[in-house]
Amino acid sequence: MAINPLTETWKQNGVVYTGWLSIPCSWSAEVMAHAGFDALVIDMQHGLADRSGMLTMLQAIGAAGKPALVRAAWNEPSVLMQALDAGAYGVICPMISTREDCEAFVAACRYPPRGIRSYGPTRSLVSIGEDYVAQAETCALSFAQIETAAGLANIEAIAAVPGLDGLYVGPWDLSLDLGLREPGNLADPRLITACETILAVARRHQLVAGIYVGSAEDGLRMASWGFQLVNIATDTTLLHRSALSEVRAVKGSKDSSDLLGTGSKGY
Amino acid sequence: MAINPLTETWKQNGVVYTGWLSIPCSWSAEVMAHAGFDALVIDMQHGLADRSGMLTMLQAIGAAGKPALVRAAWNEPSVLMQALDAGAYGVICPMISTREDCEAFVAACRYPPRGIRSYGPTRSLVSIGEDYVAQAETCALSFAQIETAAGLANIEAIAAVPGLDGLYVGPWDLSLDLGLREPGNLADPRLITACETILAVARRHQLVAGIYVGSAEDGLRMASWGFQLVNIATDTTLLHRSALSEVRAVKGSKDSSDLLGTGSKGY
Amino acid sequence: MAINPLTETWKQNGVVYTGWLSIPCSWSAEVMAHAGFDALVIDMQHGLADRSGMLTMLQAIGAAGKPALVRAAWNEPSVLMQALDAGAYGVICPMISTREDCEAFVAACRYPPRGIRSYGPTRSLVSIGEDYVAQAETCALSFAQIETAAGLANIEAIAAVPGLDGLYVGPWDLSLDLGLREPGNLADPRLITACETILAVARRHQLVAGIYVGSAEDGLRMASWGFQLVNIATDTTLLHRSALSEVRAVKGSKDSSDLLGTGSKGY
Amino acid sequence: MAINPLTETWKQNGVVYTGWLSIPCSWSAEVMAHAGFDALVIDMQHGLADRSGMLTMLQAIGAAGKPALVRAAWNEPSVLMQALDAGAYGVICPMISTREDCEAFVAACRYPPRGIRSYGPTRSLVSIGEDYVAQAETCALSFAQIETAAGLANIEAIAAVPGLDGLYVGPWDLSLDLGLREPGNLADPRLITACETILAVARRHQLVAGIYVGSAEDGLRMASWGFQLVNIATDTTLLHRSALSEVRAVKGSKDSSDLLGTGSKGY
Amino acid sequence: MAINPLTETWKQNGVVYTGWLSIPCSWSAEVMAHAGFDALVIDMQHGLADRSGMLTMLQAIGAAGKPALVRAAWNEPSVLMQALDAGAYGVICPMISTREDCEAFVAACRYPPRGIRSYGPTRSLVSIGEDYVAQAETCALSFAQIETAAGLANIEAIAAVPGLDGLYVGPWDLSLDLGLREPGNLADPRLITACETILAVARRHQLVAGIYVGSAEDGLRMASWGFQLVNIATDTTLLHRSALSEVRAVKGSKDSSDLLGTGSKGY
Amino acid sequence: MAINPLTETWKQNGVVYTGWLSIPCSWSAEVMAHAGFDALVIDMQHGLADRSGMLTMLQAIGAAGKPALVRAAWNEPSVLMQALDAGAYGVICPMISTREDCEAFVAACRYPPRGIRSYGPTRSLVSIGEDYVAQAETCALSFAQIETAAGLANIEAIAAVPGLDGLYVGPWDLSLDLGLREPGNLADPRLITACETILAVARRHQLVAGIYVGSAEDGLRMASWGFQLVNIATDTTLLHRSALSEVRAVKGSKDSSDLLGTGSKGY
Repeated sequence: MAINPLTETWKQNGVVYTGWLSIPCSWSAEVMAHAGFDALVIDMQHGLADRSGMLTMLQAIGAAGKPALVRAAWNEPSVLMQALDAGAYGVICPMISTREDCEAFVAACRYPPRGIRSYGPTRSLVSIGEDYVAQAETCALSFAQIETAAGLANIEAIAAVPGLDGLYVGPWDLSLDLGLREPGNLADPRLITACETILAVARRHQLVAGIYVGSAEDGLRMASWGFQLVNIATDTTLLHRSALSEVRAVKGSKDSSDLLGTGSKGY
Repeated sequence: MAINPLTETWKQNGVVYTGWLSIPCSWSAEVMAHAGFDALVIDMQHGLADRSGMLTMLQAIGAAGKPALVRAAWNEPSVLMQALDAGAYGVICPMISTREDCEAFVAACRYPPRGIRSYGPTRSLVSIGEDYVAQAETCALSFAQIETAAGLANIEAIAAVPGLDGLYVGPWDLSLDLGLREPGNLADPRLITACETILAVARRHQLVAGIYVGSAEDGLRMASWGFQLVNIATDTTLLHRSALSEVRAVKGSKDSSDLLGTGSKGY
Repeated sequence: MAINPLTETWKQNGVVYTGWLSIPCSWSAEVMAHAGFDALVIDMQHGLADRSGMLTMLQAIGAAGKPALVRAAWNEPSVLMQALDAGAYGVICPMISTREDCEAFVAACRYPPRGIRSYGPTRSLVSIGEDYVAQAETCALSFAQIETAAGLANIEAIAAVPGLDGLYVGPWDLSLDLGLREPGNLADPRLITACETILAVARRHQLVAGIYVGSAEDGLRMASWGFQLVNIATDTTLLHRSALSEVRAVKGSKDSSDLLGTGSKGY
Repeated sequence: MAINPLTETWKQNGVVYTGWLSIPCSWSAEVMAHAGFDALVIDMQHGLADRSGMLTMLQAIGAAGKPALVRAAWNEPSVLMQALDAGAYGVICPMISTREDCEAFVAACRYPPRGIRSYGPTRSLVSIGEDYVAQAETCALSFAQIETAAGLANIEAIAAVPGLDGLYVGPWDLSLDLGLREPGNLADPRLITACETILAVARRHQLVAGIYVGSAEDGLRMASWGFQLVNIATDTTLLHRSALSEVRAVKGSKDSSDLLGTGSKGY
Repeated sequence: MAINPLTETWKQNGVVYTGWLSIPCSWSAEVMAHAGFDALVIDMQHGLADRSGMLTMLQAIGAAGKPALVRAAWNEPSVLMQALDAGAYGVICPMISTREDCEAFVAACRYPPRGIRSYGPTRSLVSIGEDYVAQAETCALSFAQIETAAGLANIEAIAAVPGLDGLYVGPWDLSLDLGLREPGNLADPRLITACETILAVARRHQLVAGIYVGSAEDGLRMASWGFQLVNIATDTTLLHRSALSEVRAVKGSKDSSDLLGTGSKGY
Repeated sequence: MAINPLTETWKQNGVVYTGWLSIPCSWSAEVMAHAGFDALVIDMQHGLADRSGMLTMLQAIGAAGKPALVRAAWNEPSVLMQALDAGAYGVICPMISTREDCEAFVAACRYPPRGIRSYGPTRSLVSIGEDYVAQAETCALSFAQIETAAGLANIEAIAAVPGLDGLYVGPWDLSLDLGLREPGNLADPRLITACETILAVARRHQLVAGIYVGSAEDGLRMASWGFQLVNIATDTTLLHRSALSEVRAVKGSKDSSDLLGTGSKGY
């Protein structure tokens, strides 16, 4: 029977810790999936995979026995539906700023009469379960990414869209759009306030609250704030940082700089 | 000279029987293209190929001497034009529900002054013919997929869009949106009525009427109803079903279930 | 430090001559990039690469030490941002016909507060420079392709959009939409007039003026007219023409025709 | 702990029924892996996958929870080791005709001191288990394909090679090399005799006896003869035959012939 | 019925002019295949395609209605058989220097009892014809590349190997191994003598004589010498040279040099 | 002019520190190449890339301005030559155990009269330099991997092979073949003795001495012993370890184990 392991965790008040995949490769995805994350997120927006890469990465994550979410490239029906048809247990949609954005997003994730998702769950029927269509509301979750000033201002209207499953904070984009000095600084009072607002609204609407951060330390803090879907690491950054660390241990820091510096945390 | 073999068949009142391709692979496409179908349909919506897969599949189908259509991922100019530039003899556009939908769709398939298709028929000029642009109205057909209650309600307005070449029924989505109990059940009176309506409108507007079904048996019935573009098999389903059949002949049915059951017919 | 070599050339009143890439292959891209063009343009609209091909082509061009632009498939935020995140120094957006088109295009290329580009410059941070985000206005250029009668009519309003970097003429589409007899004929008075208009507007708004032509001869003429970003060759056409030339030298012209004839110049 | 499900089945005197994969695609592999076969065999000899396809197919099979074997392209150390490093539970090596052939084959599959397999089980360590190296004799099985007259003549010497796990009959090649009139005809007395010989030798040396056939019917017969690793279906053939069957049901047999006729059974 | 168009040409004393493919891309292959060459040669040795590229290139050439040969990476049974199984009408094997080399090569191309080719003509059965196996001696040609001093010295023994179909001169490697001053110089008396020897031996043994040159001019000369399989152009070189020519017409020769200079002719 | 940056470093008695690439992806390769390593090694033996992946990885490393070596899959002429033709500055050949092994290896890397490398440096001519062939002895280095007891025993004869450029220690395979208790333990006296022997022989024959280790700490020690080509990190291991570290910081160690434990150092 089709069951969404993420939903099960949340039923028991658990936190789902994720790893973020921007390397377009099924092998690095499988390595990440074996590292102990609760779920993996394939980033189709700023990551470098395309549709065929998404498929093999979903299969590789499946081989490791883990569920995957997909962060969509944009709020477009075709890419949202393709992720769900390919076996993602849910999609995170970037740049949801208005109620209309959110309604369009959620509609693309739901079969009629609740939405406009077209029938054809090619892989999900196989990888998630025979009764996938009957369970699609549980197995095709929708998370609206709140990462603009407008999205924050419209948070109540967005959260009220029937069928939405969660709100997902994108701290870097949100910081940039709020005009904060240091993007993604989780100690910035305005970012903290924004997170509190989003958490409160999520709670009131019984939505899952999620957030992207780039380290275990930040992730634990976010869980303590009440986030239930927390990203704690990104493959490109992990690889870059750990390679840099070995090189610097040999050469000192003169020959290499942290190219992905701020950026690495910043999706 | 650029000639569309499908159009030739219809001129002689023939029926074009197609095979549906959802496996993203040029070899399986070539095998299907050698099985005797009149044309093949590459499904970019619920199938798993992306743009580069579409290219090699079109080439493989060409190697078998057969014409191909593409079912677009969505009603977006870029993907419609890319299919036509890559050598498809026509596109089937999902989810056409209004006159405006259909106008946008047809415009994307037609060069000025009849539409907005951008010039650059990279492969079609080679694979279809040197005079492709002059023959583009014949060699770049547009089929509006009618698969929503709204599409059915607006069928007259949709059919009246100048330049449209055909109406294509998507029985599963249409059933779901009509709220029928068993999706895709061609014996359901409401689905039968819908097909009759669409066939009548197509006839009146001199449009080709097409439909997706998943077996020869259903296909023959659809041809007898008057459909001229009839899908009779889908690669994923053929593979799954025939594999299952061998396994069950060895093991009985206890170890394997028809995962693609209803689904397999349901694009 | 992140520097855009194209901008440097224009500061010194130089002309940037480009090669156009429609073959979806990193090796042919690298060969083109070693031929001495100032920059290469990866064509995601009528070329045959998809997103993963774009990545490896950008890397191959980088290996040759050359900058690349991307001609986007369409005016869609996702594909514009993906090109810029992958290391393109700018994007050429097809079919800009109105001020609104252009505003949407430019917004997708600029970070807040000037636009809506989402943060996550995955490869650009590595390939262009650590300070990419600070330099993004210089390193993520936006060229509006003027190739419709409407675009020509609205040229002043388009050029006035804040943040736009250039106007780029698409002679074939423009000819077709203007109803000219011979598409892309640079001797046609109406096309000449259109080019003069665009050049004048570009000059007045301090925008770079660019144009696609298909030969050195035409390119030199365009530079003499005042265009500063001039395409002079396309990989598919170069390959086709030079192959044809060898074959004809052996066989005469009976066995082969110039399939890409007019088409080859016509993006 | 690393456990080979095939070995477990044989410990309980079970038969392992396999599906053969010649389509180079992770999706068709996953579909086959969900059809209920006990294991899948990726054919790197006459199938069309290359090394990167093998990887994604192994991952897709893993996602379906099934074990995979690889039929190597040839008796070459590099390809044998790569299959085992990528997560295959064993390899079938074609054209083993002499004791020396078999010794080289087995050596390539075994770590020192029993063989020359080079250390670096990249994926197997992840997909099979942390203790893979300690369990490698169980989790990296070696099957010598007996498919030449010489191989049959030298069967005792081949079977006696220490470390070999099984003998695998290739009926088509064996028929051809024996000069039988109808290749792969399991009713041919000389082929029956050959099978009996191989089964007897396998039993005496406590080796698994395997055979490739192309249908459930033949497979059941082979199991009744005593084969424990029995192929019963091949993806290309399943797809071709089932497509052909639908087409013929519509058109009669005039437009299509069974191209893969004899061939389809003949690897 | 399976027919080899090359053989048909030679029956009528025609010359087969080929184009050489080193760009690993199905689109450039299709463009080349439409330029009028009699056949195309996919170079798996110094070209950059791997096995999956070879497949899609063969399909693309098939879509253009042309036959293809494959120049194998090396005299290894697996790669020779894979090319023939994938639909090549013959293979050119590099570096045949001795009778033993040639016997091994020819054996790998022939089914028993004449050779050791393993049964499994996956694509050839579909793309060449149902009766492929019966016609395999005609449809799976073997050309021994003579490109070492040893090969030249042993030319009689090589030519005498039963089942060999042709001798193929590699002028660059042969020049290098003969210690000639300028590799590939067809005016060098020692190279001329070598060609005469090979032509004479080919004639005496009723073998096809082939040669790789890089231009129509050289190709016509080679045909006049008596070669019947003559390469006249290579994709990488065509692209590089023609791109260079446009760039130089704009910039003069200062910014670009003929990187592929001698090399481009030198496979 | 073609110059090998590695050779330049060694002329000045520098140490070349490398990163090892087993993830088959051009993006992860580019990230590694930007981390400050002196060179990168693409592992075609235990890594998961195939030939087309090798090409794009070489291009990506080139885009980062770094040189690359390739560790070949096996001592086979085709794969050695393909790596050198594709732009590798040298190859590391596994499992060199005898003088004959080494002679065959070196011959495959050298043009006549010193070897049998076939002419056709497709990419190297472009990426390394126009005069590549003249500089090929410097730009196509050969490193014999010493990783068997036999290789150690025959070290003098191996080192004496004319044209060889270096000896490269594979500590894990060498440990296993020597029967050491803990593979790859650089504190084991027998492994230390082996390294000392190899270093002494290398010095006497003026060969570069190289070694694979998996950390900066071990790498610095190896450099202090006198190794000049020292691997200090592997992409798969870096990714796995750093991911694991974040997960454990959140969850403790209960949910994840170091799957690549010993293995990760062990190529």
